[in-house]
Amino acid sequence: MRSFELLDAQVGFTGKFIRAGVERFRHDDGQLVSRDKVWHPGAVGVLAVDERHVWLTRQPREAAGVSDSLEVPAGKLDVPGEPRLECARRELAEEVGKHAGHWEEICSFLTSPGFSDERVWLYFATELRDADAGSEPEDDERIEIVPWPLHRLDEALAGCEDSKSLIALLWLGRRRATGRGE
Amino acid sequence: MRSFELLDAQVGFTGKFIRAGVERFRHDDGQLVSRDKVWHPGAVGVLAVDERHVWLTRQPREAAGVSDSLEVPAGKLDVPGEPRLECARRELAEEVGKHAGHWEEICSFLTSPGFSDERVWLYFATELRDADAGSEPEDDERIEIVPWPLHRLDEALAGCEDSKSLIALLWLGRRRATGRGE
Repeated sequence: MRSFELLDAQVGFTGKFIRAGVERFRHDDGQLVSRDKVWHPGAVGVLAVDERHVWLTRQPREAAGVSDSLEVPAGKLDVPGEPRLECARRELAEEVGKHAGHWEEICSFLTSPGFSDERVWLYFATELRDADAGSEPEDDERIEIVPWPLHRLDEALAGCEDSKSLIALLWLGRRRATGRGE
Repeated sequence: MRSFELLDAQVGFTGKFIRAGVERFRHDDGQLVSRDKVWHPGAVGVLAVDERHVWLTRQPREAAGVSDSLEVPAGKLDVPGEPRLECARRELAEEVGKHAGHWEEICSFLTSPGFSDERVWLYFATELRDADAGSEPEDDERIEIVPWPLHRLDEALAGCEDSKSLIALLWLGRRRATGRGE
């Protein structure tokens, strides 16, 4: 049960995939609050691991001012009606050229719940094989494939600085430490 | 060195603490890209641990549609000129009523670099003692203090769903597993 209700929403900006504005809420005790709000379609991230590597990407993240962000493959839920797992399969093929025989949901999380409804679903993908040609990233994505040696996981953690990749790699380290890793 | 330059920015929405709009960039090879953009002042999160507890909070996150988000204490860098560590000290006192004798920066990360420049700095705070009265959260924050038993860290991880808390608690689990914990 929510302890508040949405009174109204004002959209001040509509972009390619986000909208931004203000929402007003009333809590059960009558208090009114207004919150800056970003509406986001959500996203998936994929922790793809084979015997020797975790498959990462490097790409510019212009909005964050980063030239070569080291990340797990990921993508927005921007195809209407596409199930999340299908989106994850598509992104893994497009970004690192792999299919996976086994999929497992790790968790979902909110990137920044103070102002955004963006939720990211993280998947663990194993039993990897090369994808067919023809799966390519979008034109304005500049994605380099980075097969990262599993024995250097600590360095991957030090090199990543986005939330989904840190959560995925910390989870992987924990799984491997407890003997449940691939 | 960045491999792209900012050409221009258009702000479409200005809220209480975020702005949203579009930025255009030119990459070194001439390609032009435009990106949805949210400007954010950044934030701090505090992993506060004593002998028996990690100190968490529960609060509504209206923009994300969550009534009782379990999180580490945190706050926006919204006081001009305030150093990050000072902000962390203030938030720890305001949100859970504690001072800390020892502070250590864990890492900083980008919550969602595809569209936002929000960076969160995470701190590890130990040697806790009660703060003086008079440190209170803002009026429209509805914050419950949750001292969470350290031996139930896995349940805290299962109960948190925001990026900063997951990263902080996964980091804590790792530190305790390797014998460097408090």
